[in-house]
Amino acid sequence: MSVAPLINVALLGFGTVGSAVARRLLDRSGGNKAIALTHIFDRRAAEKAESPAGLALASRPPVAWTSSFEDILVSDVDIVVEAVGGVDPAVDWARRALAAGKSVVTANKQLVALHGPELWALAARQGRQFRFEAAVGGAMPIVRAVAEGLTGDSITQIVAILNGTTNAVLSQMEATGCSLSDAVTDARARGYAEEDPRADLDGDDARAKLAILSALAFGVRVAPDQIPSRSAARVEAGDFTTARGRRGTIRQLAYAAYDRERSTLSAWVAPVVVARDSLFGRAVGPQNVAVLTGKHSGDVGIFGTGAGGDATAVAIIGDVASIARDRAAIVPAPRLTSDFRLHNPDHEIFELAEAV
Amino acid sequence: MSVAPLINVALLGFGTVGSAVARRLLDRSGGNKAIALTHIFDRRAAEKAESPAGLALASRPPVAWTSSFEDILVSDVDIVVEAVGGVDPAVDWARRALAAGKSVVTANKQLVALHGPELWALAARQGRQFRFEAAVGGAMPIVRAVAEGLTGDSITQIVAILNGTTNAVLSQMEATGCSLSDAVTDARARGYAEEDPRADLDGDDARAKLAILSALAFGVRVAPDQIPSRSAARVEAGDFTTARGRRGTIRQLAYAAYDRERSTLSAWVAPVVVARDSLFGRAVGPQNVAVLTGKHSGDVGIFGTGAGGDATAVAIIGDVASIARDRAAIVPAPRLTSDFRLHNPDHEIFELAEAV
Repeated sequence: MSVAPLINVALLGFGTVGSAVARRLLDRSGGNKAIALTHIFDRRAAEKAESPAGLALASRPPVAWTSSFEDILVSDVDIVVEAVGGVDPAVDWARRALAAGKSVVTANKQLVALHGPELWALAARQGRQFRFEAAVGGAMPIVRAVAEGLTGDSITQIVAILNGTTNAVLSQMEATGCSLSDAVTDARARGYAEEDPRADLDGDDARAKLAILSALAFGVRVAPDQIPSRSAARVEAGDFTTARGRRGTIRQLAYAAYDRERSTLSAWVAPVVVARDSLFGRAVGPQNVAVLTGKHSGDVGIFGTGAGGDATAVAIIGDVASIARDRAAIVPAPRLTSDFRLHNPDHEIFELAEAV
Repeated sequence: MSVAPLINVALLGFGTVGSAVARRLLDRSGGNKAIALTHIFDRRAAEKAESPAGLALASRPPVAWTSSFEDILVSDVDIVVEAVGGVDPAVDWARRALAAGKSVVTANKQLVALHGPELWALAARQGRQFRFEAAVGGAMPIVRAVAEGLTGDSITQIVAILNGTTNAVLSQMEATGCSLSDAVTDARARGYAEEDPRADLDGDDARAKLAILSALAFGVRVAPDQIPSRSAARVEAGDFTTARGRRGTIRQLAYAAYDRERSTLSAWVAPVVVARDSLFGRAVGPQNVAVLTGKHSGDVGIFGTGAGGDATAVAIIGDVASIARDRAAIVPAPRLTSDFRLHNPDHEIFELAEAV
């Protein structure tokens, strides 16, 4: 019993994440015949189509390769998966895809941190969706938990480890007593760190993710570079010895708390001493953890491996599936014209806490 | 700037959970004007409407109280929240609401464990939704994590603490060395246990929740009473002493693993010795924890307080909001007639592992 494909997906970018998404979309043995990958856009489409990863797709039902974004806009695709990275021209493509009546899925944390509220407002006006589970925490479904599961609560605080690279480096220093540079070398060897891990250690990556979570949880808008941070690049082996004397260890934490009464956001990213046997102290390797405090539900936590192409692809496919499923829960005509989540993009009053 | 209410909600049952949901729906200061509670059905509607909780709602825009379920069916409500409990007549009401074109939200774990696949298939045929986040894990958004966030993965194993009452009892025995009956008395005093906690200690509650998670994660159908269990009611203070000698403690775990190659499900609920410093050993009081193992995303965990009227209400509101949001992501006409999640209700081949 086969069901004709009903939901057409276009992929922008055929790199590590894009090819993993393509593989997973074409390899869904679970019976989900309702989602079809029909278009792949890549600047080097001709070359990518002939690459081993591209050829591996070629035996399947037709996938149209193109190096023109216009082809995607005028196509009948329902969902555009943005896996190009960078803010420009990704933000322009996301806008134009939404304006053309397509839903958009992305793993691009800088894009979402800087332009998320605009894009989800545009999506709502268009009666479409803008989803970005993969932008925070890899396969750990925290965006969904904050934006949907806890919508009925009032979240007051987020404490989290949001950067897997830094966590792998710090937990390696803790375990072996090695220097930061040796730990970085080790993390690179294990595939947990890029050649240049500064954006991770300095906190830029975690700040972008914290900005996204703050927008979702508190309805406030904060630019990543407004969040005070201290770099983990200056942590030394001796700092762990000192921390150990206090039964502690060191982790890069991202913290945000919102006081609704006073419209005040306190937020920071920094390496801090945490109890060794705490949830955060026990997170080792590239793990991510987040604890959300809700007024009614108390502490809700979530953890998982921070990243990796396959984990990112899982998160993206989950978003694609959620959008496709919305089409099953359809009512005859659009009646709702505004995003009704508890976000309020206009409510930008916030005040930064002292840097720690 | 006020937006006219567009999504009408009916509540079935005005007990602890129902009144908490009503309060939360009417008290959403976050600007969500798009959801309106318009009907409350209760067998004792007249009496409940005059109760303090009922009167507290009366000053708000019109809520129609009724003791006739037919009134709900013929009304213009879009979403029916079932907070009556019990399998009958709740299952019949859920069926009839879906058949009448309404989406259904429930916290009723027995209803979902026994009739979930039938109801979500019916919902899909009707182009509506059947959601039940609150049926497992209180406000901890695990249903959403399994059914949506990890849809793109292939989940192979679930290990979890799913019953807050039993966890409160066992962790109290661990902490104080007291007897089970003293721990039960303490749990009752703290509001963590019902007058008769047998369904909790014996594992019936956890079995129903595990059956739900198995259906979502593996696409298999297993009745709660087919899952082997051992009661925690026979755990004695001395068992903790023995466990402590092995650096362990005792927790009621729910376990399910699915071998897709051989279509074999292994599942059980039992009090088992776990390492004291493991995630499970460290769960105290009414906490719930679940660790899901995915083929691509590795271990993803989630934890939170298991239950309570307010936490349950948070989960229900999250479901209502997700359904309402689907209406914002609408396409002109229904085209999708089958549920495309990785569930396959027809695939009922499974084999039980030996009881442990």
